[in-house]
This record gives sequence, structure tokens and C-alpha cells, in this order.
Amino acid sequence: MANCLVAQSGGPTAAINATLAGVVRANQLNPLYEHVYGGLNGIEGILQDRLYDLTNLSAAENRLLRQTPGSALGSCRYKLKRGNDADYLRLVEVMDKHDIEILFYIGGNDSMDTVDALSEWARENKINKRFVGIPKTIDNDLMVTDHCPGFGSGAKFAIQVARATSIDLNVYTREEVYILETMGRDAGWLAGSTVLSGVVDVLVLPEVDFDRDVFLDQVKKCMDEKGKCYIVTSEGAHYADGTYLSAGETKNDGFGHAVLGGAGAALKQMILDAGISPRAKVQDLCSSARSANFAQSLTDVTEAFELGMSAHARSGNPAFTGQVVAVQRELVDGAYNAKFIAGPAEDFANHVKHVPTEWILPDYQGVTQEFYDYIEPLIQGEPDLVMENGLPKTIVPFNMR
Amino acid sequence: MANCLVAQSGGPTAAINATLAGVVRANQLNPLYEHVYGGLNGIEGILQDRLYDLTNLSAAENRLLRQTPGSALGSCRYKLKRGNDADYLRLVEVMDKHDIEILFYIGGNDSMDTVDALSEWARENKINKRFVGIPKTIDNDLMVTDHCPGFGSGAKFAIQVARATSIDLNVYTREEVYILETMGRDAGWLAGSTVLSGVVDVLVLPEVDFDRDVFLDQVKKCMDEKGKCYIVTSEGAHYADGTYLSAGETKNDGFGHAVLGGAGAALKQMILDAGISPRAKVQDLCSSARSANFAQSLTDVTEAFELGMSAHARSGNPAFTGQVVAVQRELVDGAYNAKFIAGPAEDFANHVKHVPTEWILPDYQGVTQEFYDYIEPLIQGEPDLVMENGLPKTIVPFNMR
Repeated sequence: MANCLVAQSGGPTAAINATLAGVVRANQLNPLYEHVYGGLNGIEGILQDRLYDLTNLSAAENRLLRQTPGSALGSCRYKLKRGNDADYLRLVEVMDKHDIEILFYIGGNDSMDTVDALSEWARENKINKRFVGIPKTIDNDLMVTDHCPGFGSGAKFAIQVARATSIDLNVYTREEVYILETMGRDAGWLAGSTVLSGVVDVLVLPEVDFDRDVFLDQVKKCMDEKGKCYIVTSEGAHYADGTYLSAGETKNDGFGHAVLGGAGAALKQMILDAGISPRAKVQDLCSSARSANFAQSLTDVTEAFELGMSAHARSGNPAFTGQVVAVQRELVDGAYNAKFIAGPAEDFANHVKHVPTEWILPDYQGVTQEFYDYIEPLIQGEPDLVMENGLPKTIVPFNMR
Repeated sequence: MANCLVAQSGGPTAAINATLAGVVRANQLNPLYEHVYGGLNGIEGILQDRLYDLTNLSAAENRLLRQTPGSALGSCRYKLKRGNDADYLRLVEVMDKHDIEILFYIGGNDSMDTVDALSEWARENKINKRFVGIPKTIDNDLMVTDHCPGFGSGAKFAIQVARATSIDLNVYTREEVYILETMGRDAGWLAGSTVLSGVVDVLVLPEVDFDRDVFLDQVKKCMDEKGKCYIVTSEGAHYADGTYLSAGETKNDGFGHAVLGGAGAALKQMILDAGISPRAKVQDLCSSARSANFAQSLTDVTEAFELGMSAHARSGNPAFTGQVVAVQRELVDGAYNAKFIAGPAEDFANHVKHVPTEWILPDYQGVTQEFYDYIEPLIQGEPDLVMENGLPKTIVPFNMR
């Protein structure tokens, strides 16, 4: 009986390890493979023959794995380039050495492209190896799949921070602006999700070219009305020429301050310079939304786990390669249900799923009801976390052992 | 039967409303007062006769109040100055108008001073009004009390963010520094608490004058050893001359960059300038640690609630004025137990309880075991939150109704 390999790539999410746990558990329920190896630090580590045997991971450790943030196998930013036969051959060499017939690659856009390229190359060169993709990304920007595992938990965290800090902002009567910055270089899903907090006055997404005057007008209107303004921005907010707001000393906005830090810091400076508010606070969520295991969405973690199981089970069909498993949304008696599907990796790769422009209200006023309806089911429920000394118990990542 | 008044002052915490809930509930269990009025936006609102009747708050709403962040009555930064008889007389006028004999003031240092000043003034002027303090502060810097309600929840949140983002930091093999900044202008309790995450390599507290060379040496040592460095800093980190690291263009550190933002941004710039790490991320927790109702410590929220009940019950003694209720730590069969005490407000006011210097390790290496033992009991347990649509349900703050 041959073995399988599973690896993680790109930025982690708070649910990416649930997918790994799903692959491992599925093979215990139905041992299609003699061993389940984890590739450490993605393709980069696999090329260095760094594997970890996960076959007999206990149920208890599997449960802790699901609530461990980060990529428990470690990750990489290394992209296997099409046509790089040396890397491809080395990969096959490592797989052969351990009698591995299939690689499950958990990742985002680039990783799905890698799955596509590898499976195509194997087919063309009659190499009997298979490659399957499983999506993850906090950015939620993959095509085909209704949404990406990890996004729901990140959104749930960001929404809770927005709700809590907005209530905090309102305790004083003084005029003040609060700016929350989230990840999201190209797509505004995560920043946009914070509207579910019910507190967002002004929303800046990368889907709309930034216009300083319109933005400041909107903030001013809000301040005039209630003396407070809660702003959320994507890190990827940018001007029409593509310059990020966070790009430091900008050339287009007519004032010459050095702006260190991100989009939030840039917006703060604009507001203070324009004299719209005497005070502004900025909170950049940095990597916490993608790692907040203490604020996981049960729906998200469950789907992430089941996608891992689905990929493993489908691989029982020897023709299953170059495919990516995904979630299709359906309504059952009017209620949200996740249906599991699979499709060609090429359909997932190299495109960014943006927030539809028709869901975005003009003048930074937020999003339409469709957006709310889309996000709401994804943040439902809380897993029953195993706690230790007041903190969610985590495992030592396999790449750190 | 006379009435009582309760108000909140200063910065909120994630547990400050539990104290309010405790006062309200205590009066339902034993109606010492006919009405429990909430003063909106602290002393500032009381002087404007802005009160809200909390007497019959339902048990269900009381429970939601405990999990609502911010100050549900609103807050203020207004300090009643000693000798400001006009304000004092106006306060008595408002109290008389509503037949209020006692004010419970939930706050930090300044508020305890206000309690002291008001009770002294009332005694001297033979005015039959009483003033009682109940501590809160995320900074945990009040004297007498073993710790301050709100601190445990803030610490629990900060510790969890540190743990999660550190695991996130370690997924790549690349060299990288992560800097987490917490509140704490004068005292390093909150920043220090993050050591319980087990991931903090370098800890910068306001209790130790900042020395750039020693700091950079320590970061370099850590980077040389493992290629990563997890740094936590208090916002109040400062040089020997008192200049905050966050003070913008600094005069003492020998390089001339404009530093916008806080201590974390300043440390990042130092590290990049010194070429110690090619990458550094900064996360400023801003006000989220003091408002993260989704990461409350059960111990903290329970004690906050019980302090409210204790203050109310003790006020059954007509001589109880100018006093502050507090927590004394005791060990019962070796286990942590909170004993409730009360003491003169003057003992609490106008002093800052710092992290003892003998608990701080040299060269930013963290803290001693005593510090761990001190924090650990304060972050234990999680309240069973009432959720709605995937988020902790909150009430509309009384000052927003």
C-alpha cells in the first residue's frame, strides 16, 4: 500500500490545521494509505526531504491540532515555477523514496496553481503521481469555492474586535475617530466582514480606488452627525494609479508627511491634517485575525476539517488528480448548508475573487444586504475549546519538534 | 428610603460593567435603596443631571450587561478638583434632587482620589452624603488591592494574541521580528502578563529606563539563536529622561527618522536600521485588550461583579464612606482565593503600583516566577457567553439610549 503526503503553503489561518486534521483522521477511518506524511514548511521542506509521520496521531492530539493556530507543518512562500523540471523531478524523487503516490496541498491561489502545474506535468511525462488541492485563505479570494476555510474565523475575530472597540470608543463624549485595519491586499472580504458588527461608519476596500476628498467628506459628515466615526480599512486600500495608501510618502494626496505603517496610519494622518477630528486611534489587526484560535467559528473549523476528509475520501478514485475540493453554498429549507464539491485546479488558480462591486455602496458607506447574507452563516457557532491554565491548549507545531 | 447612585469613570475594561451589574443585583437581593440610579458619563454627566434608573434591570439584561464591553453608563475624564466647591455643591444639589445619599464610583486612581476628596469635604461641611470607590483598571496600577478588576480579562486577551501570533510567526523559515504593543503608560502589568503565553523573547516595560544598545543586543542574540524574535512592549516604554519611545522624532537614539505611532513602531525602526532583522511586524493592541468581551476571564468578571455586591452590602453600615472595596489574595489549601476587603480611599489614590523591579529580569529578558504566579490565577476560566448570530450579545449602553 502506498503513502500520502500533506503540506501547507502560504499564510496560515485559524482553521488551516483543521483541514490537516481532517486528512489525518479520514485515513484512520479508512486507511487508503499506509502512512500519512506531513511535509514540513511546504514544498520548500519537501524538496529537502523534511517529512513528519502523522499516521497515528491520537484523537486527543487531533482535537488540539484543530484549535492550534499557524500552520502546524510550517509553511513557505516558495512557488514551484512551471517548467522548473529540476524541482519537479526532485519532488518526485522524494515522493518515490517514501513510496508516496499523492500530495494534498493546502493553500491559496499560488498553491492551487502548483497543483495544476504538477498534475499536468505528471500526466504529460507519464509519472504516476497525483496532486490535489485544498483551499484555505483568510483573504477569501479563491474562485469556484463559495468561500475559503479560515476566512470565517478571521471574520468572526475582526467583527468582535470592531464591536468591542466601537462600544469602547463611545464611552466618552469627546470627538474621536477609530480606524481598524485588517489584512486583505487585493480583496476586501475581511475588512468588509466587520460590517456585521453593526458599528462601521466608513468602509475602505481595495475594490474601489481611493478618493481622498470623498473619503474625508464622508468622515466629516459622520463626525458632524454624532462626533464619532468608526472606520475600517483593508491594508490593500490604494489610489487609482495603484499606489497603496500605506506606501509611505505619497505623491498624489497633496501633503508631504512621511507615513510609516499601514493604510490606517495614512487615513489617520489625513483626518488630523484636515482638522476633521482632534483625535484618532488606529488598530492594525496584523496577523491576529488569521491566528485567533480563541475566536474560531465552529462553522468554519468544521468545514475546514470536512474539506480535508473530503479530499482524502475522493482520492480513493485513482483518477482524482489536478483537482481541488471546495464548498458550494446551498439552502436547505431556507437554511445555509455547505455542499462539498471538487473541480479542476486551473479554475481556482491565478484569479482573485473580489467583493462584487454591485455589493459595495458608494462613498465608503459599506455594503449591501447581499454581503451581510453571504457572511452571516460563516461565523456561526463556537467550538468547545480544550483549555489549559486559562488558555486554549495548542500542540507544538510539527516543524518545531 | 433614600436612593443610591453608581457611575463609571476613566478608561473602560472588559469587566467594568460586571461591577455595575453587581451593585444593581445586590440591591435587588437586599433593597437598601429605593432606586439605583446610574450616572451617565461619570461625574460630568451627573453634574448635568443625566441619570438612568437601573433599579429594576432584569436578570437577563444583568447577565448581558456583564458581557458588554465599554462603560455601559458612559465615562468621562473630568476630575473633580479639590477645593472646587461649585462642582461639589452642584453634585450635592443633583443628589438631593433625587434623594440620593450615596455614590458608588467605579474607577481608577483619579476616581479614588475623587472619592477621598468628596467624603472629606462632606464630613468637614457636615453634608450627609457618602462616597464609596470600586476599583477598575486595565493597567492594574492601584495600590492596596491585590489586583484590579478588568486587568485579568485584558491580560487573558493579550496573552492569547501573543500565543497565537507567535505560532503564526514561526510558520515560515525566514528571519522575522514580531512586536506586540499593549496599553500601560506607567505600569507594565499588561505588557508583562503576555509572558504567560510562553513565547515572549524580549519584554520592554515602563519600569525600566529604555537603553537602545542593550535592547538591540538582546534582539540580536535572539535572532542569531533562532532567526525569530517575539517582542512585547508597553506603550509607556521611555528613555531615562522620560521621553517616550513613541514621542516621534527622538533626540536620544542617534538617528533621525520620524516615528509615527507608538513604542512598537519605534522599536521596529530601530531593529530595521540596525540591520538585525530584514522584517518586522508591529501589532498595537490599542483599546482591544480593555474591551475584548469575547475573551473575558471568568475569575476577573466574577470578582468584578462581587466587588460591586460587596460595596453595596457594606454600605448598609451608615458610617461606610470614603472607603474603597478591594481584593486581597489569600491561599486556601494552597489555591488562590479572593478575599474582599475595604480601606480608606486615600490609600488607593494618587500612587501607581508598578511591577516590582525585583520581579523584572535584566536585559529585557522577562520576569521572575513570582510574576507568573501572580498573574496565573487571574486569567482562569471562561464565562458562558450568551451568543447571538455568532457574536457575544451586548446591551445598548445606557448613555446611548
